Amino acid sequence: MNIYDELKHNLADETLCAVATIVSGAANLGAKVLVYPDGRVRGDLGNASLNAEVMRDAQRLMQVEKSVNRVYGDAEIFIEVFAPKPKLIIFGGVHTAIPLTQFAQALGFRVTIVDGRGRFATRERFPSADEIIVAWPDEAIAQIKIDASTYVAILTHDPKFDIPALKALSATHPRYIGSMGSRETRKQHFAELRAAGVTDEFLATVHGPIGLDIGARTPEEMALAIIAEIVAVRYGRSGSFLSERSE
Amino acid sequence: MNIYDELKHNLADETLCAVATIVSGAANLGAKVLVYPDGRVRGDLGNASLNAEVMRDAQRLMQVEKSVNRVYGDAEIFIEVFAPKPKLIIFGGVHTAIPLTQFAQALGFRVTIVDGRGRFATRERFPSADEIIVAWPDEAIAQIKIDASTYVAILTHDPKFDIPALKALSATHPRYIGSMGSRETRKQHFAELRAAGVTDEFLATVHGPIGLDIGARTPEEMALAIIAEIVAVRYGRSGSFLSERSE
Repeated sequence: MNIYDELKHNLADETLCAVATIVSGAANLGAKVLVYPDGRVRGDLGNASLNAEVMRDAQRLMQVEKSVNRVYGDAEIFIEVFAPKPKLIIFGGVHTAIPLTQFAQALGFRVTIVDGRGRFATRERFPSADEIIVAWPDEAIAQIKIDASTYVAILTHDPKFDIPALKALSATHPRYIGSMGSRETRKQHFAELRAAGVTDEFLATVHGPIGLDIGARTPEEMALAIIAEIVAVRYGRSGSFLSERSE
Repeated sequence: MNIYDELKHNLADETLCAVATIVSGAANLGAKVLVYPDGRVRGDLGNASLNAEVMRDAQRLMQVEKSVNRVYGDAEIFIEVFAPKPKLIIFGGVHTAIPLTQFAQALGFRVTIVDGRGRFATRERFPSADEIIVAWPDEAIAQIKIDASTYVAILTHDPKFDIPALKALSATHPRYIGSMGSRETRKQHFAELRAAGVTDEFLATVHGPIGLDIGARTPEEMALAIIAEIVAVRYGRSGSFLSERSE
């Protein structure tokens, strides 16, 4: 499979990748590599250290879904990131999940609702959701593709669901996991998860309490805080006031 | 007019105020004062220093729209804040204003669109807006009630509109003003406004660049960054990640 075939396959399959092409300044114009988030490289730019440097830059750019034109020595290289549509998996068909689905879809996310309780995860409550899965967290996670374009919000607020969800997610690599609940609840849940073999490294990646600090009180405000945090993480930003950023 | 009549009038008139009532621990149970954001007090709790202390606390609570029960010496006092529905005035019927109207209404804001250009401020573009005003900024501001529950987003991104809007707003007291544009643009506009007699004190209150730092790229993401900043200001919060807040 050549690079173009593989790229075409990635686009169809919604796989995050980047293509780096020499566009000026070098003899081998048009030479290109295809790079994946895990560092795999297909193709050759003509020298091994350039391949490695471009690979590392492409990895960083994939993290924030940004394409750039950059000069390496004499060669001008265009690194184009092909990011699939972002996906939001919401655990818990609770009230906050309703405005969160609306906001996320307005922002271009594909939204999946997961709840073990059939009366919460219904088409009546979530008329626009892209997918509704009535299943326990581990069963649901087994049937969902979770990758670097997947964002997970755990809103169940019940250890019966939260703990199995985090345990099952610990074997996957989503871009973001956020979980409701106070620091105290979090501490208790994490102790149980550690006892069940979940690593500290994984637990440190879980955002909790979930959301930006906007003082959210209503379910709609909670949903706003959560989706704003997800977009901030997506693009590698802090969420604080732009007007207070030193520059 | 007694306190209850005045409160009833304030509710009908959408005027922010607070009522503080002695609910326990003192002889004069039920004594109450009505407090306004500017420090005006109606009624008497039975002693002047208590009136003054409660007035200051009520002012702070009105700022974040929060009711509390608090003990002052022997007296337990319930301070109840009566906050009107928040209002968002958007200057500029630009693309970002469309999702901003939707998000703001989902969060309970009454939304007014103002644009001098009739082709932008149309019912077709803003089917759900509570009010659409086709007028220049100063004309529009003359006919809108702007108070402590009013939030203003200037999205025109054109000095012809931005500068007159900020000049006219400098005579009013909204809860929030945010304005599009880079730091450089802002500097130039502010120099013109200072030359026209607008104070530094007012200019320092203008949030710019507008919005939270979430890396917004699309109009929908810009709208998200703006409404999230407005809610953070409404409740006196920082907007940064809750999970990173030290506690």
